Amino acid sequence: MKVEFWYEFASTYSYPAAMRVEAAAKAADVELLWRPFLLGPIFGSQGWNDSPFNIYPAKGKYMWRDMARICEAQGLALKEPVRFPQNGLKAARLALLGQDEDWGAAFTRRVYLANFSEQKDISEETVLSGILSSLGLDAPALLTQSNEPTNKERLKAQTEEAIVRGIFGAPSFLVGDELFWGNDRLEAALEWAKR
Amino acid sequence: MKVEFWYEFASTYSYPAAMRVEAAAKAADVELLWRPFLLGPIFGSQGWNDSPFNIYPAKGKYMWRDMARICEAQGLALKEPVRFPQNGLKAARLALLGQDEDWGAAFTRRVYLANFSEQKDISEETVLSGILSSLGLDAPALLTQSNEPTNKERLKAQTEEAIVRGIFGAPSFLVGDELFWGNDRLEAALEWAKR
Repeated sequence: MKVEFWYEFASTYSYPAAMRVEAAAKAADVELLWRPFLLGPIFGSQGWNDSPFNIYPAKGKYMWRDMARICEAQGLALKEPVRFPQNGLKAARLALLGQDEDWGAAFTRRVYLANFSEQKDISEETVLSGILSSLGLDAPALLTQSNEPTNKERLKAQTEEAIVRGIFGAPSFLVGDELFWGNDRLEAALEWAKR
Repeated sequence: MKVEFWYEFASTYSYPAAMRVEAAAKAADVELLWRPFLLGPIFGSQGWNDSPFNIYPAKGKYMWRDMARICEAQGLALKEPVRFPQNGLKAARLALLGQDEDWGAAFTRRVYLANFSEQKDISEETVLSGILSSLGLDAPALLTQSNEPTNKERLKAQTEEAIVRGIFGAPSFLVGDELFWGNDRLEAALEWAKR
């Protein structure tokens, strides 16, 4: 079975997950689908207008320490983002265009690196444009396409699909109807896909 | 270094953690300390008067499914508790008496089994008394001792210590000042203790 990787660009634990999910799926011989979505509407419906890591300071303090350990173990750089959480809306609209294309995975990884290791503002079109160009893509055309009403609606629909299928946080992995939440459940999701 | 296992009897993920922590610590050759505390005051200070798994239904639904997978993999029975969360105050007061005694670990495991596998009400003194007796202990004496003001105050102080040391959920593991949150961080905590 396939594993679907559901992610949000503002999500901290989605960063180490995004950086390792492709290699892990390949090693497990499991097909991988990339599925960007937005946590904002989900958190908003729970009464949160900010990241729970900001709302609950003890949890936030722990998360950054836990992320530091995880990134170190994975050989990933981690630097304090220019703000937390960043607005990943435009990046998600672009990732949606690429989710079933060759470039979607590489674009996604570059955006996470920009956010969590390069201290770039991923809400800026110049940053996203630079990433697209570095991948040999037609940045102006993709930016225009990403801002078209049909694409905006498609991202809303994908976020709605996430809610309907039980997703409440990121990263999440879906294997059919079976939901796994968190970077630390990637291995369990791949095991499930192989059953 | 030692690893401290901080747990709350109402906490679902503390159940599989409590059932495996002793063997895991032994295998890693790490000394283990059992530290019962209360999540109620911590959650209350965050504005929650119920388990977050009840407050946020999608998270709760996922947690029970995740628990089922974890318990199955660990060979543990899991049955819907008589209520969730159960009131673990009296059990915690008893566990506190035993935390540095020979019987504390066994008592803790029996209480978790009563809660999550035997559908017993762990707030009832008869249930706790039965567990103590089955371990060959003087149940009436321990119950009396557990309800003495000094022991009640000691549990409050231990919960206060948890907060001061950054704990915000259960189970948590402390290796010196280094905090690990969640059943799935037990291995990382033991690795840290061996560094």
